[in-house]
Order: sequence, then structure tokens, then C-alpha cells
Amino acid sequence: MNIKVVLKNTGKIILLESLLLIAPLIVALIYKEDTWMYFIESIIISICIGGILNSIHTKESRIYTKDGFLIVSLTWILVSILGALPFYLSGEIPSFVDALFETVSGFTTTGSTILANVEGLSKGMLFWRSFTHWIGGIGILVFLLAFLPQSKGQNIYLMRAEVPGPVVTKFVSKVNMNARILCLIYISLSMFQVGFLLLGNMPLFDSIVITFGTAGTGGFSITNTSIAAYNSPYIEYVVGIFMIIFGINFNVFYLIYLGNIKEALKSEELKCYLGIITFFTIIITLNIIPSYLNIGQAFRNAFFQVGSIITTTGFITADFSLWPNLSKVLLVLLMLIGACAGSTGGGIKVYRIMVLFKNSIRSLKSIFSPRSVYSIKIDDEYIEKETVDAIQTYFFIYMAILIFSIIIVSADYLDLIGVFTSVVTCLSNVGPGLGSIVGPVGNFSSLSVLSKLTLILDMLAGRLEIFPLILLFTSMKFRKYNVNSNIDVECQEIE
Amino acid sequence: MNIKVVLKNTGKIILLESLLLIAPLIVALIYKEDTWMYFIESIIISICIGGILNSIHTKESRIYTKDGFLIVSLTWILVSILGALPFYLSGEIPSFVDALFETVSGFTTTGSTILANVEGLSKGMLFWRSFTHWIGGIGILVFLLAFLPQSKGQNIYLMRAEVPGPVVTKFVSKVNMNARILCLIYISLSMFQVGFLLLGNMPLFDSIVITFGTAGTGGFSITNTSIAAYNSPYIEYVVGIFMIIFGINFNVFYLIYLGNIKEALKSEELKCYLGIITFFTIIITLNIIPSYLNIGQAFRNAFFQVGSIITTTGFITADFSLWPNLSKVLLVLLMLIGACAGSTGGGIKVYRIMVLFKNSIRSLKSIFSPRSVYSIKIDDEYIEKETVDAIQTYFFIYMAILIFSIIIVSADYLDLIGVFTSVVTCLSNVGPGLGSIVGPVGNFSSLSVLSKLTLILDMLAGRLEIFPLILLFTSMKFRKYNVNSNIDVECQEIE
Repeated sequence: MNIKVVLKNTGKIILLESLLLIAPLIVALIYKEDTWMYFIESIIISICIGGILNSIHTKESRIYTKDGFLIVSLTWILVSILGALPFYLSGEIPSFVDALFETVSGFTTTGSTILANVEGLSKGMLFWRSFTHWIGGIGILVFLLAFLPQSKGQNIYLMRAEVPGPVVTKFVSKVNMNARILCLIYISLSMFQVGFLLLGNMPLFDSIVITFGTAGTGGFSITNTSIAAYNSPYIEYVVGIFMIIFGINFNVFYLIYLGNIKEALKSEELKCYLGIITFFTIIITLNIIPSYLNIGQAFRNAFFQVGSIITTTGFITADFSLWPNLSKVLLVLLMLIGACAGSTGGGIKVYRIMVLFKNSIRSLKSIFSPRSVYSIKIDDEYIEKETVDAIQTYFFIYMAILIFSIIIVSADYLDLIGVFTSVVTCLSNVGPGLGSIVGPVGNFSSLSVLSKLTLILDMLAGRLEIFPLILLFTSMKFRKYNVNSNIDVECQEIE
Repeated sequence: MNIKVVLKNTGKIILLESLLLIAPLIVALIYKEDTWMYFIESIIISICIGGILNSIHTKESRIYTKDGFLIVSLTWILVSILGALPFYLSGEIPSFVDALFETVSGFTTTGSTILANVEGLSKGMLFWRSFTHWIGGIGILVFLLAFLPQSKGQNIYLMRAEVPGPVVTKFVSKVNMNARILCLIYISLSMFQVGFLLLGNMPLFDSIVITFGTAGTGGFSITNTSIAAYNSPYIEYVVGIFMIIFGINFNVFYLIYLGNIKEALKSEELKCYLGIITFFTIIITLNIIPSYLNIGQAFRNAFFQVGSIITTTGFITADFSLWPNLSKVLLVLLMLIGACAGSTGGGIKVYRIMVLFKNSIRSLKSIFSPRSVYSIKIDDEYIEKETVDAIQTYFFIYMAILIFSIIIVSADYLDLIGVFTSVVTCLSNVGPGLGSIVGPVGNFSSLSVLSKLTLILDMLAGRLEIFPLILLFTSMKFRKYNVNSNIDVECQEIE
């Protein structure tokens, strides 16, 4: 591991952030808000810190596997701290921990908020807050697939930890070009959504920021009652459908882009994902009919919330804390499952759940018939043992982090359901939990600093898919294995 | 798979049950209760059914791996149904589903009850109810290690699914002799406990039935307030310490029996188990001090409940539903962890958790340093990949059953915490859940028939460690794999 290389590359990404901060600055200037100067200040601070780190002199320019993981986790932490500056400097979020919580919630596309009155924020801040969703959604893909390890071969290890989907095998050949295609797909879909929202008479500003929240599967809104504020079934269906689209593995869109629609629709993960959405929507619709005027209204709310929760977006049209237990349990399960691998959504991911189920059946067969050998396939491709092992480990560590965080947050003044769901919703990057405090109509402001810091780490762990963050906190321990592992694992520095 | 062999052997075990029913019959006769005739009726029915099954003529006498699994699961279900007859025939538990719930809760050493007023039962029924704990606790060990596959070699597959501890490697040589030693250890420890309880002025009848509940890590008591009814710190400490003793891997006692105390105390699982108990007791003591008169009283209650919950016994000295959130979360975590492998306790088991943690570290190392090879050890022995895989599968299926059961039970009229903990407590064979309905001072009587049947299956799945029960419900599906797997997996019929 080369700490200089790590810091230098982190500096480059911070310099990139100072460019991104220009967008909310322009919005503030357009709306003639005084807050423009806080964006200027934040840009200057980012340029200074990024510049200092980038000026570190090092002869070494190669990035090893572990360096990549470290750069990713360090970058996300620093980018979040600097991204919180506008909120804090302007005093619109007076507590720095709260500002950090909001920014991490933005970049990690979680959407949990500490704001009781979102509508009190200036336009510039609202724009920046939602823009972090949009950056965070594509960001992790861009950082990993495009900007980080630029040359062939070994970045498969990075991606295997991050995106255990078909993406690994199919995108691997020309990483940079594919990152550009991903961006193109992401921007095109976003523009489509803005168009559809404008057709529904949503104001331009709202259309753009709601699209940011949808595309990144984030869920920050600019009204206190989220999507329900627009009181428009058309808008609810547009947002609902686009949430589901952004929860699909981007490999599917890539195949469509290549004209291979037939193979795109054959994706087992896609079928499973759409199957779960259909099944859960039907069950919840039937379960909540008594709470609504008619079956149409019940269906619309069930469809919206299922789409919002499985994609880990977190937009709200109904206070599902008031729904029957069955619906609540199903929604919490959807939080854990999450969207497709290789999408902007969070959670354990449909692909991983599929591998875990298929592997369980394989393992049971070999327990009952010890002499036979079985293996598992997805999309007609055999899944390697190392992939299965990494996914099983991921599942166990996910549960371990969940339980450990629940223990810490349980010391707070929350009901047990609030404790449990606040951790699930943050670790899976969803947004709202259950109950009166952290539920759809509540917010996270009343939690203790300890709980907020725990949830900040959970959000980062969920977004970065755990492994990079573990390396950051245990890098000392793993350092001794450097010699053997780095021999032939090398990549080039970012240009 | 040979269904005739399976049924014939199941019949033999049912005949064995009719012998066991003589014990409560004698108690009823001693106390001159009218209920004696219901035990006679149950004995006659058991003899008839067992006799018919045992008379099945089959030339085949070998038991294959899957036959063994099927016999185990079928036996447990039939033995529970027949064991429920005395309660049902006597009318002391008027609903058959309730009687079945109580009996399954007994045999699986869970201890969840549907009785609001335990003290209303006759002595004979109270004895039988607690006796099922004692049979169930040793039963699974005896059935698997002694009575079932009597010859060498392949029963290791059976045991690997059941007891993933050092037991597998060390007890395997002479299964029958070791089963006898296990029984000897079990009976000796039970007699010790009866002695200690008598010294504390507990009546003989109470001493025996409380020992049944402790030895089997069951938790049925004969008073409405469980162990708190005796109002004696001495008795609380005796029961508390014996619960912890019965939660230890019986391999440790076997080594002590062989005079190898040094190696017995070196067991990593034992150290981990005692470490967890110590750590959790300290944290909970500190957390509940404000609720008690002094630190001594807080410690006594914390120690008792930690011992009771980690060993999955479920005896109660305090309504921990009223404790702070932190303590409640820690107790639910203990329910999931459970006791040592190869003990009478339930839960996921300390050994499995250790393997999962060690394997996660190994897996992370190989993700960060792909070219290096690592392996994991417990007690200086390498853990085979197949064992790790079976444990990972076990963990995932445990969680899947947990979630699936929660979905079903959530349709019932319970608060969400009640739903969640009723499933956890039954699947881990503990007894009490949290909240006013299924908590320490509540009972399971108000649940729907659907919920009760779900929890009955959960208790059986937990006690039989899932795999045998899965085979029972999917035996059709696995049948096609018979040919390859049975070639060299054979055992002799029960004598």
C-alpha cells in the first residue's frame, strides 16, 4: 500500500468536487440568494485541500487493489465532509454533525433527513442537497469503473467486491469507454424523466431536483410531504416507474444500447426483480384496501411505496407506518433486499439474494447426497466459488453490522421498532424508517450524536458495499499481507 | 430412499414413547389424580400406531443418509402429536392445536406456553410437560448418536448437519458407547442439580421438574411466575449456573470424564461462550441498575436472564420487557446466538457464529489480497470448506425461515416487536419473547391457529437444526438424486 498515491488520488477527486459545487452556486445566483457566497467559500476550501493533497510528490504511480479500496473510502468521507460545508457555513443546518448526516445521506443516496422543515431551505441549498444524490448515484460507478483503476485485468477484483453482477464479466474489457456509456445512459434517462415531469405541470426546478432524487435512488424531496405534495397520480406514476427503471442493473440498458434487446430481457435478475415488485405490490394492495377509498388508490400507493422501497429511493406518497403489520414487515424486507446489482440502488441486492438462495439449494443437495457435485448458474453462466464465498461473507457482515449498529442506537431514546428500522433504512440507503420518530412523516434530528455518527457510517458502509470501509478501519492489520499480494496486482494512476 | 425402512424405524421410536409415558402415569397414581387414565389411553394409542408401523415388512434393513434425516423429522412430528394426547384427552388443554403447541414446545425444549395459568394443571400433566423437555434435550443426541445409524463411517454426514462441533471428530469412533456416556453425564448432572435444589428447601416434585426444564434447556416451570416464585437468591444462582452448564458442548464433559481436563478447558468455543456470558452480564447489569434496589440485585437478575436466554432455556426471574432498550436488544441477540454446539441448547450456536466470523476475516483477506490463500482453524484443527459452506447455508436459511415466519405471523393481532420476538424465541427454542403478549409475563394463547402452526414448525426446525425438516418437505424433489448418492452410504437398521 502506498499512502502517498492514495492521498494524491483522493486530492484529485476533491478538486473534482469543487467543480461540482459550481452548479448550486449558479442556482443561488439565478434565484438571487445570499447563499452564493457560502458555495464560493466551500469551493475555495475544497480547492485548497484538494490542491495540497494533489501536490504530494510520489515517484510511484501504480494503484494496487487495496489502494483502490482505500481511495474509494477515503474519498467518500472527505467529499462528504467538504460537501457539508455550504449547509454549515450558511447556518441553514446549524449543527455540523447534522450537516454531515444530511450530506452523507445525500451522497450515499439514502435520503434520511434531519430537517423537520425542508421547505425552509434556500433554492441553492435544496439544489445542492438533491445534486449530491445524482452525483452519488452515478458516482460510485464512475469512480470505480472509469476514474480509478484504468487498465485491464486486476480491477475485476475491485468490481467483484462492488458489483457482483454480470457487469463484472461484460463491462470489463474497456472500462473507460463503458463508463462513458454508463454516464450517457444515466443522463439520457434523467432527461427523459425531467421531460415527463414537465408534461405533468411540475415546475422546472422541482422536475430537476426530483429527478436527481429518483435517478440516484436517493429520495430527498423539496417539500415536507415528499411526492404526496404534488397531489397528482400522473406524477406519482412517472416517479414510481422511473424509480423502478433506475433500480435495474445498468448492464440491461447497456445490452439494449447495443441493440441486443432479446438478451437484455433474458436477465434472470431483472425477471426476479420485477417479479418481487409485482408480487409485493399485489399483497400490499390487498392488505391496505380497507385504509383507502378504492382499490385504485390502494394499488397506486402500494405500487409507489414498493417501487420506492425496493429501489431504496425512499420517496413517500403515504405514511406506511400506519399500514397493517403485514405491509410494514414486507416493506422492511424490501429494504433489506434492495435493487439490482449494478444499479444506483442500495440494499443487499437482488443478485446476491438469488445467489444465496441458489447456493442454499446446492448446499442442501450436497448435504443430503454427499457424493454428488452440484454447481449454480445465473444467466447460463456458472458462478465461481470465490464469488459465492464473497457474497456469503457479505451477507454475514451485513447482518453483523446491522446488529452491532442496532445495539449502539438502542441506547438512544427511541422505540425498538424505530431503533431497528433506522439502522436498516440507513444501511440499505433507503431513507425513512418506521414509527413516529424516524418514519415517513418524521426525521432523524432528535437522535443523539452517537446514533447519528453510527448511522453515517452505516450509510457509507451500505453505499460502498462494506468492504472498502472495512479495509480503511483495519488497514494496519492487513498491511502485513502486502508483499505476497501486490506482486502482480497493479494498475496505472489516474491521468 | 426406502419409505418402508423409514416408517418401520419411526414405529420403533413411537413404541419407545409409550414406555416414557409410564413415568407421568406413575406420578398421577402417586398423587391419586383421575388423570391417570388419560395416560393409559395415550399409551394404548401409541402402542397401536407404533406397533402397526413396526410390523411393516421389509427385506431392506440399511438406513441411508437421507433415510436418517427423514426418520428424525417424521419421528419428532409423530412423537409430538402422540405426546399431546394426555393434555387433549384430559381436557386440561381443550384445543388440540394448543396441546400440540405445548408438546412441541416441550420436546423441542423451547418452553413457550399457551397456558395463562400453569398452576391449574394436575401434577401428572405438569410432570409430563416438563419430562418432554428432559427427553427432548437428550433425545436428539441419543436418537442421532446412539439409536439411529449404528455403524461406522457415514453417520458423520448426519452429525455434521446436526452437531458441527468437535463432537463430530471425537465421538465418531464408537457411537453407541459414547451415546451411553452422554446419557450418563446427562443423568449425573441432573441428579446433582436436584440435590442442590433440595438443599435450598425446594420441594422434591418441584426440584425434579425444574431440573427437567434446566437440563433440557427448556424452561417450562410449574408456577405462573417461573423461578421468581421461589423468591430465593440461592435457587436462582443454582438454576442459573446449571443452565450455563447444560449449555456447554458435551464434548467438554466427555473430555473431563476421560480425565483430560486440560484439553477440555482449552476449547475455544467454551471460552467464547463464557466470554459472551460475562460481557453481556456486565453490560446489562450496568444498564438495569436504576431499576433495582442495589447492584447485587441487578447483577443477579442480569446473570440469570443472560444465562437463561443464551442457553435458550427461558426461565424467568424478571420481566425483562420492562428493561431498557439496550438490554432488550442484547437479549434478543443472545436468543439468536444460542448455546454451544453439541449441548442441549438451541439457537444458531456459538460454534457456528465463530466459524462465520473467522471465515469472514479469511474471506476479506482473500478479497483484498487475491493471490494469497488462507484457511481457518478452531482448537488447532482446520475447518473443512464443506463444513464452512454448510454453516453459511445454515445461517442464510435460518434468516430466511425467520423472515418468512415473521411475514406469516405479522398477519396476527400483535405489535411488531411481539411478532418479531415470538418467531425468534420459537426458532431458537428459547421460550419468552418481548412485549405484553408473548413477553416473560405473557403467553402464546391469543395467537391465531395459523401463527401457532407456523411457530410449531419453527420450533421443530430450530430443534432439528433445519436440514432434516427441509428434506421432509422437499423429499419428492430430491428423490431423483438418489441413485448416485446412495451407492456407498449405508448403515444398519436399529436393533
